[in-house]
Amino acid sequence: MLRALELAAQGISLCSPNPVVGCVILDKNGALAGEGWHEYERRDHAEVVALRSAGDRARGGTAYVTLEPCNHTGRTGPCSEALIAAGVKRVVAATLDPNSLTAGRGVRRLREAGVVVEAGLCEAEARRMNEGFAKWIVTRRPLVLMKVAMTLDGRIAPPAGHHKQRQPYWITGEASRATVQTLRWMADAVLTGVDTVIEDDPMMTDRSGMPRRRPLLRVILDSALRMPLDSKLVKTANQDVMVATVSQDQKRIEALTERGVRVEVLASEAGRVSLPKLFEKLGAECVLTLLTETGTRLNTALLAGGLVDRIKIFCSPQIMGSDAVPAFRGLSPAVNLEHAEIERHGNDFSVSALLRDPWSEAAR
Amino acid sequence: MLRALELAAQGISLCSPNPVVGCVILDKNGALAGEGWHEYERRDHAEVVALRSAGDRARGGTAYVTLEPCNHTGRTGPCSEALIAAGVKRVVAATLDPNSLTAGRGVRRLREAGVVVEAGLCEAEARRMNEGFAKWIVTRRPLVLMKVAMTLDGRIAPPAGHHKQRQPYWITGEASRATVQTLRWMADAVLTGVDTVIEDDPMMTDRSGMPRRRPLLRVILDSALRMPLDSKLVKTANQDVMVATVSQDQKRIEALTERGVRVEVLASEAGRVSLPKLFEKLGAECVLTLLTETGTRLNTALLAGGLVDRIKIFCSPQIMGSDAVPAFRGLSPAVNLEHAEIERHGNDFSVSALLRDPWSEAAR
Repeated sequence: MLRALELAAQGISLCSPNPVVGCVILDKNGALAGEGWHEYERRDHAEVVALRSAGDRARGGTAYVTLEPCNHTGRTGPCSEALIAAGVKRVVAATLDPNSLTAGRGVRRLREAGVVVEAGLCEAEARRMNEGFAKWIVTRRPLVLMKVAMTLDGRIAPPAGHHKQRQPYWITGEASRATVQTLRWMADAVLTGVDTVIEDDPMMTDRSGMPRRRPLLRVILDSALRMPLDSKLVKTANQDVMVATVSQDQKRIEALTERGVRVEVLASEAGRVSLPKLFEKLGAECVLTLLTETGTRLNTALLAGGLVDRIKIFCSPQIMGSDAVPAFRGLSPAVNLEHAEIERHGNDFSVSALLRDPWSEAAR
Repeated sequence: MLRALELAAQGISLCSPNPVVGCVILDKNGALAGEGWHEYERRDHAEVVALRSAGDRARGGTAYVTLEPCNHTGRTGPCSEALIAAGVKRVVAATLDPNSLTAGRGVRRLREAGVVVEAGLCEAEARRMNEGFAKWIVTRRPLVLMKVAMTLDGRIAPPAGHHKQRQPYWITGEASRATVQTLRWMADAVLTGVDTVIEDDPMMTDRSGMPRRRPLLRVILDSALRMPLDSKLVKTANQDVMVATVSQDQKRIEALTERGVRVEVLASEAGRVSLPKLFEKLGAECVLTLLTETGTRLNTALLAGGLVDRIKIFCSPQIMGSDAVPAFRGLSPAVNLEHAEIERHGNDFSVSALLRDPWSEAAR
């Protein structure tokens, strides 16, 4: 199963909006017979790829698969039927389907055909790989992964006037920033606010150097259309920059559109872009995972609104004190990070936690 | 040497104001011949205890000792002479003496007598055990270890009015608080401000359950003598509570003194107790390590004044936002924690770092 998880990881950033899936087939003597993983462009599901590579050796064998085999006909035929037809005797699935409407159907069909089925091996790992898919398939909204880079005492920038505008100010070190590139690579879209654009002039591109099928969609919340036309984001736009606004200023909209920026006029909530409406829109565009890299106001609004599914906070081991810019305004009640995981990134470290489990939402 | 360090640790909280020292003696064939550690009350230094337990087997053997053997006559005779007299052929010391005036003297004397001497094995571990001693022996002031317990975003208490006065409010969990008891056990004195006393009514006692030779000295900074007579600190005082003040209010001083509290009237700095003067006073009372458990104002003053040698920050994985009480007011420049160490304490974690190395100050 660990090998199947490794295979599944090959599909990261390639198979979205499908889940990442890996499959290993052992022959009847327990020897490796075939391997496969799902890549969107090649259409075939991991099981079908693995069965093809196993050929006749699949007969009487065991299939390890990181997600319950599907039992429906989409772009491809049902995998459960393919496994049955190949004569596989036993299927071990890491987890059932996240969609409660279809979960268990693949298992049921296999069992009806006399195949021995077990589920739950390496379940936590398998679920984690498809958190975005689980959230999206059930709610049609992206999983929201909030990234924050701050000092040990929760500051995201020095006091006002201590750094030049329109230049990035890095709180964290190189190792943390490389990890952020990996997070961008794993995401379908990244979100920031126009204040951050004005302040730091970031590119928000995926500079991981890793392959991706669809370009990273860069989304800017900009209710009043203050987006600077000479910002790096506008200069590098190629239909992959979306400005979400409630402004109807046609001149500004045209100026942005002409430069390859998509402008989406969305429903307003107290004069600002409605975040739930934006997430609905992104979900409709098959954004499974949205990485947020926002400032104080949006960090607070997203957390207070219960809109964050997972949070990852990079901490630089420095103390700036309370004159510096806080990462979060008042939150009442406090937000608790349960089962927090801690990782080192050079001199920095990160604390990450799941605030809402899309897999258990799916189960409800 | 690892065994010698274990032995040295037996002296924690017992041998202060002497350093903790452990010694292992191997006979000429490399077999364990004797062990010893220094305990203040028994007077003998670790080497002498180990030599006694080794007896004749020390002759031609090797002594592993966590600190350079002394070459002076204090309460006991010089250890270098004892090792020479016992016929030890080789001495391995983890580190030289922290006092640059005497460092190397023991080694020199041993070498003059034909003993092979090596130094520097497990040096970092050995120095860490005697950080307080190294600071105090050279500067006659205690090592200042700052403890902070805060949320992930640097808050030490919820917004004003969110918790009852004169009741402790715990940010961190049980595992962190147990570790704080260990820090108190390892310290000679603990420091807090009268605001914390009024706010939380803490006891500030060592509840580690571990043996200590001298009672933990509980020091309260109270420039205006606002110490509540019905506080737990006053109620449990037995000459082990020191109120440091600049007030000359004889009535208040008497009221406290009658209740077993020591009141020290110290030099003022802008109307408040001078922290350097307080540390001088504590050093004169053989306080090697002072643990600070203070609030926002004192945390900031201590850090900004460059008065902190080591910091240990316990973080609870929760986010309170900027309405809650910050751990530090503005610090400019920011304080950098280099080579920070991260530990887990249940759901919490701690970040600790050395801000000023008393061993390298000693070398200057």
